[in-house]
Amino acid sequence: MRKSMVAAALLLAGTAQAGEGMWVPQQLPEIAGQLAQAGLELDPAQLGDLTGQPMGAVVSIGGCTASFVSPRGLVITNHHCAYGAIQLNSSAERDLLSEGFNAATPGDELSAGPNQRVFVTREIRDVTDEVLARVTPRMSGLARQDAIDAAQKALVAGCEAEGGVRCSVFSFHGGLSYRLFTQVEIRDVRLVYAPPGSIGKYGGDVDNWMWPRHTGDFAFYRAYVAPDGTPAPYSPDNVPFEPARHLRIAGQGLEEGEFAMVAGYPGRTFRYALADELAETVEWSYPTRIELNQQLLDLIEAAGADDREVAIRYAGFNASWNNQMKNFVGQLEGFQRSDALARKRAEEQAVLDWLRAQGRAGRPALQSHRALQALHGQRVATRERDQLLGVFGNIGLLDAARRIHRLSVERGKPDGERAQGFQTRDEAAQRGALEQLERRMAPEVDRQLMALFLARYVELPAAQRIPELDAWLGGDDQATRDFRLDTLYAGTRLDDTRQRLEWFDAGRAAVEASDDSFLRLAVALAPAFERIENERRRLAGEDQMHRPGFLQAVIDYNQAQGRAVYPDANGSLRITYGHVMGYSPADAVHYAPFTTLEGLLAKDTGEDPFDSPGVQLDLIRERAHGGRAMERLGSVPVNFLTDMDVTGGNSGSPVLNARGELVGLVFDMNWESVASNWVFDPEMTRTINVDIRYLLWVMEQVFPAPRLIEEMEFAPRP
Amino acid sequence: MRKSMVAAALLLAGTAQAGEGMWVPQQLPEIAGQLAQAGLELDPAQLGDLTGQPMGAVVSIGGCTASFVSPRGLVITNHHCAYGAIQLNSSAERDLLSEGFNAATPGDELSAGPNQRVFVTREIRDVTDEVLARVTPRMSGLARQDAIDAAQKALVAGCEAEGGVRCSVFSFHGGLSYRLFTQVEIRDVRLVYAPPGSIGKYGGDVDNWMWPRHTGDFAFYRAYVAPDGTPAPYSPDNVPFEPARHLRIAGQGLEEGEFAMVAGYPGRTFRYALADELAETVEWSYPTRIELNQQLLDLIEAAGADDREVAIRYAGFNASWNNQMKNFVGQLEGFQRSDALARKRAEEQAVLDWLRAQGRAGRPALQSHRALQALHGQRVATRERDQLLGVFGNIGLLDAARRIHRLSVERGKPDGERAQGFQTRDEAAQRGALEQLERRMAPEVDRQLMALFLARYVELPAAQRIPELDAWLGGDDQATRDFRLDTLYAGTRLDDTRQRLEWFDAGRAAVEASDDSFLRLAVALAPAFERIENERRRLAGEDQMHRPGFLQAVIDYNQAQGRAVYPDANGSLRITYGHVMGYSPADAVHYAPFTTLEGLLAKDTGEDPFDSPGVQLDLIRERAHGGRAMERLGSVPVNFLTDMDVTGGNSGSPVLNARGELVGLVFDMNWESVASNWVFDPEMTRTINVDIRYLLWVMEQVFPAPRLIEEMEFAPRP
Repeated sequence: MRKSMVAAALLLAGTAQAGEGMWVPQQLPEIAGQLAQAGLELDPAQLGDLTGQPMGAVVSIGGCTASFVSPRGLVITNHHCAYGAIQLNSSAERDLLSEGFNAATPGDELSAGPNQRVFVTREIRDVTDEVLARVTPRMSGLARQDAIDAAQKALVAGCEAEGGVRCSVFSFHGGLSYRLFTQVEIRDVRLVYAPPGSIGKYGGDVDNWMWPRHTGDFAFYRAYVAPDGTPAPYSPDNVPFEPARHLRIAGQGLEEGEFAMVAGYPGRTFRYALADELAETVEWSYPTRIELNQQLLDLIEAAGADDREVAIRYAGFNASWNNQMKNFVGQLEGFQRSDALARKRAEEQAVLDWLRAQGRAGRPALQSHRALQALHGQRVATRERDQLLGVFGNIGLLDAARRIHRLSVERGKPDGERAQGFQTRDEAAQRGALEQLERRMAPEVDRQLMALFLARYVELPAAQRIPELDAWLGGDDQATRDFRLDTLYAGTRLDDTRQRLEWFDAGRAAVEASDDSFLRLAVALAPAFERIENERRRLAGEDQMHRPGFLQAVIDYNQAQGRAVYPDANGSLRITYGHVMGYSPADAVHYAPFTTLEGLLAKDTGEDPFDSPGVQLDLIRERAHGGRAMERLGSVPVNFLTDMDVTGGNSGSPVLNARGELVGLVFDMNWESVASNWVFDPEMTRTINVDIRYLLWVMEQVFPAPRLIEEMEFAPRP
Repeated sequence: MRKSMVAAALLLAGTAQAGEGMWVPQQLPEIAGQLAQAGLELDPAQLGDLTGQPMGAVVSIGGCTASFVSPRGLVITNHHCAYGAIQLNSSAERDLLSEGFNAATPGDELSAGPNQRVFVTREIRDVTDEVLARVTPRMSGLARQDAIDAAQKALVAGCEAEGGVRCSVFSFHGGLSYRLFTQVEIRDVRLVYAPPGSIGKYGGDVDNWMWPRHTGDFAFYRAYVAPDGTPAPYSPDNVPFEPARHLRIAGQGLEEGEFAMVAGYPGRTFRYALADELAETVEWSYPTRIELNQQLLDLIEAAGADDREVAIRYAGFNASWNNQMKNFVGQLEGFQRSDALARKRAEEQAVLDWLRAQGRAGRPALQSHRALQALHGQRVATRERDQLLGVFGNIGLLDAARRIHRLSVERGKPDGERAQGFQTRDEAAQRGALEQLERRMAPEVDRQLMALFLARYVELPAAQRIPELDAWLGGDDQATRDFRLDTLYAGTRLDDTRQRLEWFDAGRAAVEASDDSFLRLAVALAPAFERIENERRRLAGEDQMHRPGFLQAVIDYNQAQGRAVYPDANGSLRITYGHVMGYSPADAVHYAPFTTLEGLLAKDTGEDPFDSPGVQLDLIRERAHGGRAMERLGSVPVNFLTDMDVTGGNSGSPVLNARGELVGLVFDMNWESVASNWVFDPEMTRTINVDIRYLLWVMEQVFPAPRLIEEMEFAPRP
């Protein structure tokens, strides 16, 4: 018993070992000793200065991270993060996904689309007291959530009043604290450079999550602003943004064992989830979602097989469903390999035992834990329905119709009372989404997706059926469903972008009186979606009532043992550090931390996804390293591994050396590490990064961009 | 040009680098310096003493190698080498393949079958002059082959006259020299110990040729002789053979980088083949044979799917076809990876250039080379037919009928004139093969195999058709073939073992007058098979006229550069040496040379072929190493890699340390090395061996055999 408790303590989530830890920048002075020992040459406090060097250069581009690399607003990120912009500018005639893109002059830079943003974080402020000011212990869950939402909206509105900034409140440790992020929101973003897909997406889905890897997963944007320097939508008159900070390039890269750190916007981790929540994920959510994604992918693949245009339109969905599916498969493998559920249960038990040992003082946290378990049980009761709505309610024409209707409803309220995501501040993004739908949807495929949705819907347990949808359907059988779909797709004009944008501006009365079949369906379902959303918000409110108490106990338990605790990833800015390091994926197998040009050549089959451009293969054969080789390796390093702690959202993050200079870009995690989102495994968790030397080699020799090389600033060799 | 010649010279087959070289024991003093430098602590001359220690303990068991490990005739070899014997003693009721076998007392040891032999090599003598005594330069190919065959038979007959020995003449360097091997032939061989298949065949076909590996591929036989010490067929009165030498066990095993050597009987390599011969293999033989084996395997698998008895009977064929197929696939991959054909052409060109530079002196070898190319062209002309006959002519009832008829014909000649394989000395083996057929054949599957043969036969080019077979068939169409097969299988009783053995003794007239349909087919086809055999012998004779001249030039070319040359493997006793060493199969991937018990546990799925016995898994979980762990590894090593030079036939070979003590058994080559049979690749060529520590751990704890542990002699720790 003692032995298993010690093991549990060693494994407990959130403790600082190896590369583990997604630290809030301001938290770094707490771990200054560890950082110095690891090799950081900067003052940790400097990393807490969001407007200083290097943090002032690190930006969010929504779902991915990026960084400024020139005083003229040049932004570097992953090819897969710029994928949507590349796709938007591609067609069957001019396929930038295949050919790559290299703007010859500033005037050739292409809009990345109305929704692409560059968010420059200017300030992070603790607003816990403000957010919880009106919360009282006896409030119902829904009232509590309303109070929190209202406070957050007020904070955001006040923050955004000055204009040109985007403000967001992030919850940490399940609502134990809240932080307000103020970000300059740049709305004119242009595609500057993307290598051909056979470099940027080399290895494709086959190599996704895999090591050894040989992917040139990088691309460049440029941020533009109005001539007066303020953020503005796309305009030919706009001028490059001049960031206060930009990263310098350390062309010498890193050596094995060297210190590295990453700043970025990791999306979500669940390291402080309950054991029951992990069990549910392992036993139900992931297996069922894997099966659903496979169906979705089969459908898209069949539809795109003979129609390149359809394939391009759904390429984004295809990539993301595939990615998610593979990720979940990898997580399940990882859970099994590391016996994650048993470890998680042991960790949780150790905290509960520690609380019990404290007698009366430990009781509130123990009660919170029991309450959270009960809330989890309530969520499970509608999981099948919620999974279906989560997927099919948010794609294609149904999503468009719902957005149009919902926005028309919310517009009737004062801005401060409008639902999050449907406020004045969100309208540009909503409009952009409706506009871009034409590039990301084909009606015949949309119909097939709806047919799949209905086929699965009619299999739901009776208690999870939605009366409004049943009424619209009028029957479960295939013939009735087909008839409904015939009517639905014959009676809509929402597949026309002009129509969608007209409805976007039409007002609630007009939308609700419309005879467009998709709008009618959205209107009919609106009460159901509202009911379900309120149920979700009630649960969120109750969760916030209990989770902080339990997570504070987890923090106390760790601090009692001298360990600093970082919060779960929540999409906010974090820093992680570690070292260049290989790993052993299996008995007698060791993976070195660098891949080489020669390895790329050996892997090349000439067929997608292993079909490097001929010029690249010739240069490799000629050993034309152009001064970018790493001496110990005898070649140009292509990708490298570090033991840092990242997750989705960190894609595109700059990898920085001990002096804060750019040495690569994070673009993936290894297969063995994906389960670390729930239970961190220091032995197996590695980030996969593009090496700056390969990036420069490509830009100098393979797909040359002398204009950009010239524009970037190189750090002197130390 | 100069550069490519240097490269070619470095790569030339037969030169001593890394672990390359299958040395004839007597040749070792030539390379004494290299051996000492590599770490050998014995005098190389001692390894040339076939009756001394350790070579006196190394034996052939026909197709595999083995060694004596006790003074009472205990023999150790691979589980897969004893597979036939285990299979022979298995049935659906008592499945030794699954359960393993562990004879409780000497009386429980089971006959390995009438054909199992242990051959103890006593002498190797150069007989080149005798073999070629009657050969003259102007002889026709067939006459030349007749003269060589006659001389060999005479040598063998003389050698075997004393009784109890088996003598064989081996040709080296394509007939440049001949050596006579004298071997004591032990004919009563018994199965003593085989671990369960889930140890002995762990990983099965999935892991075959693969690293990392966790297979306990070992088993024990015992050699028995008549009470007077002379070899005799199986008899309950026989007693254990007392070998002059047996290996001592070095229980401490090897460390990484340590010297290792292997003595054994490698089957065939083709390192001195012409470039044209390699091209033919790459472009035609292997691809077509892979396709054929897949058809054979599909057929066997379907037949055995619901019939465990059928599955057991064809398990041997299944394993060997599968193995061969996978081997050929691996060779093709290896040829491509190492650009083997281009290297081979460059090597050959370097020798030809060197010969041309010698003017007149080089001409005969150049002529030999051209003649060999022409002979190759003649072989290609009938390759489709020869491949079909090679497979289907030598299995099942057709093979049995042909043996019976051929033997009855040959018996009519003086023994010295009888064909090789059908002399008096071969009759016991022939009889054994006919007897064992009942355990390795099911008539309904045999018929399906014949149907496949005929279906492919009727697709042969017209020039390759066999008139006798056409006459028997009477038409190419499916209905006619089916009718012929109906008649064939209805009209034979050769599926009855007693019948086969009666025909075996019946004499030519009776056989040729028989109305057994299979015997009638064999009689009808006999002239065709004889014609084809004589054509093959003519080509062999012409080959022997030219190949020695060219290969002598290859030797001279190498010796001119100070390199000793070993001959291609030909089934005769060889020694190879090297070191314990991992390798890098791909960019950024390194394979360590040892696998561990923990790796086995991690790999175990509970399902065949990764379904270790529960007791083994429990012992691993308990870290019950029983003193067999390797300190640096912190565990018991299961398998290990060396860079030695082996091929099929080396299976079961003892791995010896620098003092000639047993530290493991060769049981496989890695996937990347199989192409080395043609063009040696020192970077990738590794042997896969069972570690003595795992072997002892299994015998001590998992499937305990204290009787055998007690019987073996352990070397003192140095």
